[in-house]
Amino acid sequence: MTEVSTARRSRITPEREAELYAAVLDLLREVGYDALTMDAVAARTRSSKATLYRQWGGKAELVAKAVRQNKPGASSDEVDTGSLRGDLHALTLQSDDCQMEQDSALMRGLAMAIHGNPDLLQAFREHLIEPEMAEFRRVLQRAIDRGEVRADNPAIEFVMHMMIGGFVARTMIDEKPPTQAFLLSYIDAVVLPALGVPTT
Amino acid sequence: MTEVSTARRSRITPEREAELYAAVLDLLREVGYDALTMDAVAARTRSSKATLYRQWGGKAELVAKAVRQNKPGASSDEVDTGSLRGDLHALTLQSDDCQMEQDSALMRGLAMAIHGNPDLLQAFREHLIEPEMAEFRRVLQRAIDRGEVRADNPAIEFVMHMMIGGFVARTMIDEKPPTQAFLLSYIDAVVLPALGVPTT
Repeated sequence: MTEVSTARRSRITPEREAELYAAVLDLLREVGYDALTMDAVAARTRSSKATLYRQWGGKAELVAKAVRQNKPGASSDEVDTGSLRGDLHALTLQSDDCQMEQDSALMRGLAMAIHGNPDLLQAFREHLIEPEMAEFRRVLQRAIDRGEVRADNPAIEFVMHMMIGGFVARTMIDEKPPTQAFLLSYIDAVVLPALGVPTT
Repeated sequence: MTEVSTARRSRITPEREAELYAAVLDLLREVGYDALTMDAVAARTRSSKATLYRQWGGKAELVAKAVRQNKPGASSDEVDTGSLRGDLHALTLQSDDCQMEQDSALMRGLAMAIHGNPDLLQAFREHLIEPEMAEFRRVLQRAIDRGEVRADNPAIEFVMHMMIGGFVARTMIDEKPPTQAFLLSYIDAVVLPALGVPTT
């Protein structure tokens, strides 16, 4: 079974896959997760529903992978600038302001959908949250190895919480999408000091 | 006009107002903001729609005030323990874990509704976000006056962002509602160190 399934998967080229993901994101922005159907994806991409299910298993996984694929740096080399501040700034600068504004709207819609759809939460954890957290953990581990951050600093486990706060609260409090400039100053004012890293 | 309107407002007793707010929150939890109608509020509370509109102007203001009223400490005396850590802990301890879990679900639903309803965002800013920020500003100002926090610390303007991050990310990353214990350790690990306040 696994081999058959792998053989079938290989029929889809990377270009075709990228095309499909782009169409899924367009549909998500147009109608939202709950109203998005596999029928609509099939029609928009001129593929068969059977192919979509065979390749992705279902809507939740298809959407999570489309969002992951869309993230800048998702497939690029590891960020490693030699300092924690450099690494966190470099990760932030992977998305330009326009991309961040789009992401922010998309993620807001999906954050809502997650609470009514356990399979979407599951797919999100697997394809988005876990890889992102793993990247932060690698960046932090190198900072610990370099002696920049103490291994027992209690803020280490909250780095994702702090970063998500910057993203989400910016929209809520300031009524503005997050920008590179905002996130860089937030990293310098909040994340690095909490980790005990001097910013000057 | 203003005097007539004030006179009319005074017809509703505080008990009746609390009853109305409780009914609004029940309806919100049952159907969500978008499906909540003034007709349903009127029916549930045996009041006339005219009264509701006269008293609150509309759905957005009614909902924002109901949520505000529901917040523990909304009408209590100012928190002032003599230290920043004491004040932030005291503010956190105003809600027990059960209350926080309910709040978290309610706010998640409303955060979604806000993005499609500019009048709800407006009412939220006025009745919830602004008063909450004002409270944080007073707590921080006293910490500055006591010499605990430097007036030019760049993390001061991000205190709400950090706190919101703790709330929101807890659900997203840890799949758990925020608890008192979580928030207290987050305040000690993140918020106070970012503000340059020693926690030991």
